[in-house]
Amino acid sequence: MLRVVAKGKLKPDVKKEEYLQIARELVIETNKEEGCISYVLHEDIKDPTIVTMIEEWVDEEAINLHNASSHVRTIVPELRKLRESTEINLYREVK
Amino acid sequence: MLRVVAKGKLKPDVKKEEYLQIARELVIETNKEEGCISYVLHEDIKDPTIVTMIEEWVDEEAINLHNASSHVRTIVPELRKLRESTEINLYREVK
Repeated sequence: MLRVVAKGKLKPDVKKEEYLQIARELVIETNKEEGCISYVLHEDIKDPTIVTMIEEWVDEEAINLHNASSHVRTIVPELRKLRESTEINLYREVK
Repeated sequence: MLRVVAKGKLKPDVKKEEYLQIARELVIETNKEEGCISYVLHEDIKDPTIVTMIEEWVDEEAINLHNASSHVRTIVPELRKLRESTEINLYREVK
């Protein structure tokens, strides 16, 4: 199992609800994917302009399929326009 | 349920195994805590000097108890000495 943490910071003039409205569709579509274990949008408790997707995937192939999906290709660029920064890490567990 | 992502970057001269040996004890002790749902150490697939704890907690009280525990108070400062940077975010899900 792999985890992805995609941490974003909204631009100062962006309304949170505008961002959430677009992000919700991405969450719904992604959770339908076979290789997706979990894909959940979060906000930082102290700074709600930090919006972070915490994701669980069966393997790297599932992530590649996700990245090539039509919902990612249409929705992700829209979300990115509303963020001033984005930091994505792909993780595996270490024992 | 709350999630914490604690992302660290090891100092250049630190041996990964040295870090893991100390971190394993923290993982074992923390997973015994009643309010801990999940507490898993990860490494970034592209940059193994990035070591990140991804945590799930029942509530904020559980996190406070964790932060006050003897294993956190003794082990976390040891781990911090081996990292050049640390970034901690506390998240709640947004729907």
